Amino acid sequence: MNVAALAGGVGGAKLADGLAQVLPPGSLTIIVNTGDDFEHLGLHISPDLDTVCYTLAGLANRTTGWGRSDEGWRFLESLEALGGPRWFRLGDRDLALHHERTRRLAAGERLSGITRDLAARMGVLTTVLPMTDDTVRTMVLTDEGELPFQVYFVARACKPPVRGFRFDGAERARPAAGVLEALAGADVIVLCPSNPWVSLDPILALPGLRRAVARGVAVGVSPIIRGQALKGPAAKMFREMGIEPSSRAVAEHYRGLLRGIVIDQEDAAEADGIEAAGTRTLSTRTVMKGRSARRRLAEEVLEFARHLMR
Amino acid sequence: MNVAALAGGVGGAKLADGLAQVLPPGSLTIIVNTGDDFEHLGLHISPDLDTVCYTLAGLANRTTGWGRSDEGWRFLESLEALGGPRWFRLGDRDLALHHERTRRLAAGERLSGITRDLAARMGVLTTVLPMTDDTVRTMVLTDEGELPFQVYFVARACKPPVRGFRFDGAERARPAAGVLEALAGADVIVLCPSNPWVSLDPILALPGLRRAVARGVAVGVSPIIRGQALKGPAAKMFREMGIEPSSRAVAEHYRGLLRGIVIDQEDAAEADGIEAAGTRTLSTRTVMKGRSARRRLAEEVLEFARHLMR
Repeated sequence: MNVAALAGGVGGAKLADGLAQVLPPGSLTIIVNTGDDFEHLGLHISPDLDTVCYTLAGLANRTTGWGRSDEGWRFLESLEALGGPRWFRLGDRDLALHHERTRRLAAGERLSGITRDLAARMGVLTTVLPMTDDTVRTMVLTDEGELPFQVYFVARACKPPVRGFRFDGAERARPAAGVLEALAGADVIVLCPSNPWVSLDPILALPGLRRAVARGVAVGVSPIIRGQALKGPAAKMFREMGIEPSSRAVAEHYRGLLRGIVIDQEDAAEADGIEAAGTRTLSTRTVMKGRSARRRLAEEVLEFARHLMR
Repeated sequence: MNVAALAGGVGGAKLADGLAQVLPPGSLTIIVNTGDDFEHLGLHISPDLDTVCYTLAGLANRTTGWGRSDEGWRFLESLEALGGPRWFRLGDRDLALHHERTRRLAAGERLSGITRDLAARMGVLTTVLPMTDDTVRTMVLTDEGELPFQVYFVARACKPPVRGFRFDGAERARPAAGVLEALAGADVIVLCPSNPWVSLDPILALPGLRRAVARGVAVGVSPIIRGQALKGPAAKMFREMGIEPSSRAVAEHYRGLLRGIVIDQEDAAEADGIEAAGTRTLSTRTVMKGRSARRRLAEEVLEFARHLMR
């Protein structure tokens, strides 16, 4: 069974790891949001790609939920003492990945090729693709004006109320080599439990992406449980966009794309409404605590998808 | 008493620290070689400036003789694991200084202004000046061709036999603001025990520098003791340039510039010959182990200079 998964950061990376535990490396492609990418200290930083690669490599920091394990802070501590910018927390180990990516980009290599090689050096066997090698930048439209994603997310801590989103460059960007092929060749497409507005929508904004997903057997996993996101501003964004956050709202958000959606058992009461609106549902435990929980959820998602294919 | 000192890396930094212990901050200016500066991982690295600043700030690593104390290696370890360049050893803390300098240079600031500010943030009260804000690059002419200094020094570990030196850009470079003023206003000019060929010659190659030093009361400290350098390739360079390394050879190297030279007591037998050739000498202990030895040598150097002024 060939599977392609669309993923953003933490939640998406966890399910991607579950899928990687279940599927042979050659049958799984993770397509990752790069709308959060940005330049900082002259470095090209790809937060979602890094979270996915660190998670798949078993190098992710389980305490913080972002960055690397066995991380050190001497660089940042010294940078602060010198009056340098401190708003984006760069660990000593994490910094190496940004440096090496930036060095190779400057030498003319593509992000997708660099990612393939660096992931392999970390021991990741699964194919991890940036959604594009071109520049797409998620802009958050807020009451304080349009903010680049990292400014909104890190520097402003998601405080400014959101009015909309713009994926700058998305219309002109080409999906990275392998993205459309992976979607076309996939028996199942998984939309991981990432933020719909700022993690998966940037991917879906690329030319041909929505169509490729709609043509396949696509299953989503709701990142909203009892009206809340486990992590990040997804629920807050739904609310500020005038939508009550719920699993049903997630299913609605992806209307026309999903055959089925996996929702948390806590939201089982929403299943009938979602099914009535045309999306099949599976209610189960969607919180992934530990590697085995990721594997269990991945197995259930794939079993659900198999069921939908019949 | 106003003092200006020309310094390169480790040995120069130690005497600079000794002078800083003896003199009030406003009376001392350290003029530092930037011919060793280079670009690595997109960062502007100034090894001698950093060694001088770290030493004056009490942040230098006493074990390695270069870099910072309480240093970590997570960055480099992770960079190596990703296949990145490993030939230049960048510590986690040290990296912060290169990043901050590079960020500010890219923003259009001058190296001298950045150095003043960063040194102050490290707690350095003495004036530390890069020799120039322009680009001068020390090239080592070897049997294997002309090598940029860091390639010769670090990557090739000083192995290729030396035939000469070239300070690329020196003729067109302007001494940084304050350099000629400090030399003109100095009661004493100290040539620190740095490598004559690649640490002080680049400074002396700048327009107006030799003249400014020759006009003042200049005292050198020999970096050669019993035909050897305490650290670095100075003795090897003398030999490969066809000169037997000795304190006398150092005095000869600076002919026309020095009123006096401080040589190690181990070389006291050379004093007569050096004096006969026109340079006054002081024989004493020149090896600086610990901060108090730096202070003691600085006091002796200044006392010797006072004596020469009479």
